[in-house]
Amino acid sequence: MTALTATAFQGRAEVVFHPQCFLSAGHFAGDDEARAAAFLEFANDPAFAHVWFARGGYGSGRILPRVLDGLRAAAKGKSYLGYSDCGFLLAALYRNGYRVAHGPFPHEIRRDGGDAVVTRALAWMIDGAREALEPSIDGKHPVAAFNLTILSMLVGTPWLPDLRGHVVMIEEVSEHLYAIDRLMAHLASSSVLQGVAGLRLGRMSDIPQNDPPFGQTPEEIVRHWCALAGIPFLGMADIGHDVANKVVPFGLP
Amino acid sequence: MTALTATAFQGRAEVVFHPQCFLSAGHFAGDDEARAAAFLEFANDPAFAHVWFARGGYGSGRILPRVLDGLRAAAKGKSYLGYSDCGFLLAALYRNGYRVAHGPFPHEIRRDGGDAVVTRALAWMIDGAREALEPSIDGKHPVAAFNLTILSMLVGTPWLPDLRGHVVMIEEVSEHLYAIDRLMAHLASSSVLQGVAGLRLGRMSDIPQNDPPFGQTPEEIVRHWCALAGIPFLGMADIGHDVANKVVPFGLP
Repeated sequence: MTALTATAFQGRAEVVFHPQCFLSAGHFAGDDEARAAAFLEFANDPAFAHVWFARGGYGSGRILPRVLDGLRAAAKGKSYLGYSDCGFLLAALYRNGYRVAHGPFPHEIRRDGGDAVVTRALAWMIDGAREALEPSIDGKHPVAAFNLTILSMLVGTPWLPDLRGHVVMIEEVSEHLYAIDRLMAHLASSSVLQGVAGLRLGRMSDIPQNDPPFGQTPEEIVRHWCALAGIPFLGMADIGHDVANKVVPFGLP
Repeated sequence: MTALTATAFQGRAEVVFHPQCFLSAGHFAGDDEARAAAFLEFANDPAFAHVWFARGGYGSGRILPRVLDGLRAAAKGKSYLGYSDCGFLLAALYRNGYRVAHGPFPHEIRRDGGDAVVTRALAWMIDGAREALEPSIDGKHPVAAFNLTILSMLVGTPWLPDLRGHVVMIEEVSEHLYAIDRLMAHLASSSVLQGVAGLRLGRMSDIPQNDPPFGQTPEEIVRHWCALAGIPFLGMADIGHDVANKVVPFGLP
């Protein structure tokens, strides 16, 4: 990462890893208190321009109540980048007026082609590079992007932002087609997508075998529920758990 | 099944399988229209004392809007038995004043010890056998039981019943511990369990390996979220995806 920022960005920025990233406590990189404290320490430090979540997995929702109450003025001046499980934090931060974006993790430098995805995220943070953005973003409609499971788990909670008027993009990984259908049914049966400008489908990757074959593709599933719920389906979105994952800054530019 | 009703119940009852049970349409036993029509045909037929859902899997939530509008007077005079995915139907029917119960499927006759579990369900339907009931049911508090995932997917939908004052039992199968934790976080962060008399934990079975080890047992996870959300944890419930699964008639006896 240091080599990358030194070469691709001429040392104009530095990525600082909080020591908490290297902790381990069961499933998590440190217990809830340690993870919440680390987040608040960097979010509230005016020396940092961005908070870049190191990776997904599961756990960001567990620290929400602790971190929202601990944010100070310096936290409003920066943006927060991540996706997947970090959608809990992105949602709650966006709802509370913070600048957030759905996009790659530093951890993804380990992927094949990982340099490119990490460079894209850095290009957006350091230079606001337009080519890092999801290409359907038109600057006219506010946008938001979520992992499908996380958006379902936000329904009925105090963390869910008001998505009316937004183009909402969804992506998913490692879920069966029946589960994708069930998640879409959940969104379509609740008020979460009522009044959105439309829905875009990112990549649904690494889908386990359905037994028997489900009988519909992810796009057919999403179109089915959009039609039933009266949600405009706007086509595909260039986001997903892969190296092509583009950046979606929530709201309007 | 015919042999079982003939011997154990002296032919005092007959189980009739709707032909729809043997249909196949991708993931489902017939398309939504066929499944909804079959349900309504039997639910609205005064000749039947019970509607016994054949099996779980996924799909009952897809037919909810169609079936609720099609129920007639005869549907109120009977009870509806099933669990797992059928929790969508149980929830919506209970919310609309129908008699429902969480309990075994006829399909489970294929399990090792399947005769016993099916006989238990029949004993409850035919004779109202007390020994078929989940043993913590005290007749003082209304009760309800759900698969944990299904209860989470009901949050924010028009199918979720008012569970205030109820002892709510949950069970789960084939979900990772991190997913169980995430589902409990969802329930604890929404209003679904606010005002319940308490929560009981049924069996969480066939849990895939968590990598790394999650660090908490299902009971520790449930206790954690109950404590945070101020929900009384009342102990275990004798329900689950297994042959010991007892019957939980929703509400009061």
